[in-house]
Amino acid sequence: MDLLSLETPVPVVDLDIVEANLARMQRYCDAHGIALRPHIKTHKIPALAQRQLALGARGITCQKLGEAEVMVEAGLDDILLSYPLLGAAKAARLAALAPRAKLRVAIDSAPALATVAEAARASGAEIGILVEFDSGTARTGVMTVEELLALARAARATPGLRFDGVMTYPLGPKAAAFLAEALPALKAEGMEPAIISGGGTPRAFHAHEAAPINELRVGTYIYNDRMTVAAGHATWADCALHLHVTVISRPEPHRAIIDAGSKSFAADIMPAGLQEGYGYFPDYPEAKLERLSEEHGMVDLSACARRPEIGERLRVVPNHVCPVSNLVDRIAVVQGGVFQGYWDVAARGRSI
Amino acid sequence: MDLLSLETPVPVVDLDIVEANLARMQRYCDAHGIALRPHIKTHKIPALAQRQLALGARGITCQKLGEAEVMVEAGLDDILLSYPLLGAAKAARLAALAPRAKLRVAIDSAPALATVAEAARASGAEIGILVEFDSGTARTGVMTVEELLALARAARATPGLRFDGVMTYPLGPKAAAFLAEALPALKAEGMEPAIISGGGTPRAFHAHEAAPINELRVGTYIYNDRMTVAAGHATWADCALHLHVTVISRPEPHRAIIDAGSKSFAADIMPAGLQEGYGYFPDYPEAKLERLSEEHGMVDLSACARRPEIGERLRVVPNHVCPVSNLVDRIAVVQGGVFQGYWDVAARGRSI
Repeated sequence: MDLLSLETPVPVVDLDIVEANLARMQRYCDAHGIALRPHIKTHKIPALAQRQLALGARGITCQKLGEAEVMVEAGLDDILLSYPLLGAAKAARLAALAPRAKLRVAIDSAPALATVAEAARASGAEIGILVEFDSGTARTGVMTVEELLALARAARATPGLRFDGVMTYPLGPKAAAFLAEALPALKAEGMEPAIISGGGTPRAFHAHEAAPINELRVGTYIYNDRMTVAAGHATWADCALHLHVTVISRPEPHRAIIDAGSKSFAADIMPAGLQEGYGYFPDYPEAKLERLSEEHGMVDLSACARRPEIGERLRVVPNHVCPVSNLVDRIAVVQGGVFQGYWDVAARGRSI
Repeated sequence: MDLLSLETPVPVVDLDIVEANLARMQRYCDAHGIALRPHIKTHKIPALAQRQLALGARGITCQKLGEAEVMVEAGLDDILLSYPLLGAAKAARLAALAPRAKLRVAIDSAPALATVAEAARASGAEIGILVEFDSGTARTGVMTVEELLALARAARATPGLRFDGVMTYPLGPKAAAFLAEALPALKAEGMEPAIISGGGTPRAFHAHEAAPINELRVGTYIYNDRMTVAAGHATWADCALHLHVTVISRPEPHRAIIDAGSKSFAADIMPAGLQEGYGYFPDYPEAKLERLSEEHGMVDLSACARRPEIGERLRVVPNHVCPVSNLVDRIAVVQGGVFQGYWDVAARGRSI
């Protein structure tokens, strides 16, 4: 089957670019003595997680328990759940996974710790604990070293749990400042962390300068997107996923409508540092994807010397690639410029 | 199973509110002699489409061909495809559906007309054509009455096609002005349109005042959302879909983190006329869902006298409900306040 005969909209992933992106990040981590633990939230595909491991990754990171269930089922057996779990149902599911994989869970509160403890008790398997601290996102994560110490002590004191270290996102001055206070305090209590985990693709290649981490969680680097290009992490040539779309209408000379809107692109991030718009057209760099409705994308061609015709196929680099994977059951994959088939996005929609 | 024991995040749909919303819109249409043709893009569930028909709807509207395929497979047999189709693959799929359902397709160009003509030829079934015109969205739709006339003539002259009428979105002064010119021009050529179709939930109950339509395409009205409430179309009590979420972290007194982000809420519309934020908490009206990352929602509780605890379940009315359905494989349904089971969102992700 010819790549151009695939129906649109469809994400097309170039495995040669994927391979180069994975190898580059692994080389960076190896050079700086940092273990790589890729975040599968970006691709949600077990075969790509296996490839990350084959190239040297220590294990994988999953955000939601449902993602981890898919990955364990596919044979992945070293997983960090970077997300607090609350409640009996989550504890029961975690307990079911625990005998099948080496699990660590990030927590930032006593109730989240208790969920993991219950899973460890129920399964009889030991589960590692990372305590998450806030380094500027105002998301999850404890706000003070005192809270971190209290949770680390609780993890150490709880049967079935093992205090493995600390985790944060993103890596910046606040992470470094927090660690400068937390690491000596942990050491003073005999709880030197085995794992100091930091995350975030856009500044990943500066992780070693930002804070004394020894494990890196990155997701987007496998595909890259308009956001990572804007951040200087990657070039357009490093973008492995393009949404292939079709021009379905040309109502005015300066306007094209494509067959993909917010149900294909998602629309959650408008990257700073780039002109406005929801995506980048490598073949029409001056075209601006200025508005999305659910199934339509409105493209302003005013600045384009050459303009696409109705029925023409276009390639688009999305602003943020992670939610794009989460909207499709399958992606098309290409290697050596040749269509290889469709791959299931096995953990799509596993937000529970 | 108890509703509160369902794992989160999960959309929960109250069938009693659905029924009231459907009945109210049907009454409005009946009172004004307008045929109702609900847009299934909101719910994507055949059983709900069947209920819309049982209450009096003439047929259904689908945006994408993939949605229509799911609906025809489930027995729905009167479908308007409100979207231009381009290319041989789409023509082949349309041809496969044509013998199984009464189909109409909206087009706004000669190539889109040719796709439908090819499907009619290949299937031997007649397919109706609506010509879409622009009434202010600058999306799809012809810009002039001359273009509309040319496409109507082409539809009339093409074997296998039947010119059925015109279609637009939204309904406002521009729609009325266009129709005031187009309707006499069509009549003068013996092409009086059988169908004059208008769309859009937020101003649906004023459709009869806006323009001389005889068919209404609405989707969101089945569930309603923060946007339709902001537009005055509905009240919070008319919102049939709530995303049930759990508070997974309370890092600071004024901040809660919930287990749903842009992979559950989508984030495409920030409604005007309401305070900022990505959703409304009926049980904590002062809480503001101020930021989303992929799996986290950041809630500002500063204005709340009473504040939710960690582990507490919250209900959220999303800003725009349509993309929320498109993110989940199933919804939980409730009737008489009792959990009835999960229903598959059969046409989820059918954007191709």
